Amino acid sequence: MPDAPIEFFFDFNSPYGYIAAHKIDDLAAKHGRSVDWKPFLLGAVFKVTGSQPLPEVPMKGDYSRHDFARSARYHGVPFNPPADMPFSPVAASRAVYWAKAQDPAKGRDMALALYTACLAEGNEIASPDGVVAVAAKAGFDADAVAEGIQDPAVKEQLKIVTDDAISRNIFGSPFFVVDGEMFWGADRLDMVDKWLETGGW
Amino acid sequence: MPDAPIEFFFDFNSPYGYIAAHKIDDLAAKHGRSVDWKPFLLGAVFKVTGSQPLPEVPMKGDYSRHDFARSARYHGVPFNPPADMPFSPVAASRAVYWAKAQDPAKGRDMALALYTACLAEGNEIASPDGVVAVAAKAGFDADAVAEGIQDPAVKEQLKIVTDDAISRNIFGSPFFVVDGEMFWGADRLDMVDKWLETGGW
Repeated sequence: MPDAPIEFFFDFNSPYGYIAAHKIDDLAAKHGRSVDWKPFLLGAVFKVTGSQPLPEVPMKGDYSRHDFARSARYHGVPFNPPADMPFSPVAASRAVYWAKAQDPAKGRDMALALYTACLAEGNEIASPDGVVAVAAKAGFDADAVAEGIQDPAVKEQLKIVTDDAISRNIFGSPFFVVDGEMFWGADRLDMVDKWLETGGW
Repeated sequence: MPDAPIEFFFDFNSPYGYIAAHKIDDLAAKHGRSVDWKPFLLGAVFKVTGSQPLPEVPMKGDYSRHDFARSARYHGVPFNPPADMPFSPVAASRAVYWAKAQDPAKGRDMALALYTACLAEGNEIASPDGVVAVAAKAGFDADAVAEGIQDPAVKEQLKIVTDDAISRNIFGSPFFVVDGEMFWGADRLDMVDKWLETGGW
């Protein structure tokens, strides 16, 4: 399947996922590829790996917070996260699957609007109300979003993707799958680029 | 201190440290800098952070082993590690401090010889005998090395560097400190390059 979409797994708490979200579509397009945007629940993965968010790991807190901001500046991406992290990414992730069911491009637009409102502008997107407010500002119908994130099929979709990620050992954010090859981290985008160009090495 | 050496912390078990060991001197020289090679005991750090070697973390084992080899090929570095990992890096690290006390360039030569013998050629460097054999092949005097790695001052030096790393929250391998700025990972070498060029961003 040489033209299969690039799978892009991310959690809305992940600054490196947010940086990658600004890069992956252009990178894919350069190689004639599309991107399948897949928000998932990293907290569920961490229960399996015994991991914690980087800022909560002993010794790693100060470094990781510093590197989040430094990496964002390095990549030219605005970064001003809310104080309350990690937050529940459930409502935001559901909003993406609701929009994506209508049109994959709308799923991406929703994801970028939510990521930006949260990590660049410091807004909370943990609550359904917070998510609906951001979506409305981005041009989505507020009532339809509010209803959509309660849709059992939408809820189920987030669960399916998260379970699928765990079953495939997709343990971090961002995580890319390119023709079956797995890449973890925004700092693997150069490798993803070369993989798409060469088919592997 | 614009001309202070770049501190390069690494553990002999670390494939990413090994990859960085092939790159960091050239990168520093490009900016008129030298490198202070500092092997340390990541196992002592992991006791503080509660971390484990990547291959032993649930879900991360297969990915990390695959990425070690793929990253080595990407960077053009031969990679054929021994089956027994992680191993004790104590004797190898002491050999570096013994050689470094004579001449920093010899410390680097010792480190590269040991890293290569182990991670590119699959030899064990956990035992003093294994370390002495590699050092002798690299042109060091076998008896002097065997004696040197038992020298209390050399043993103390490894302890001092490891304690210093822990006190400064240097939690991984490789880890670079450039004019007080900290960078974790071989995948931060591009940032180190830009930091040296620009003085920060």
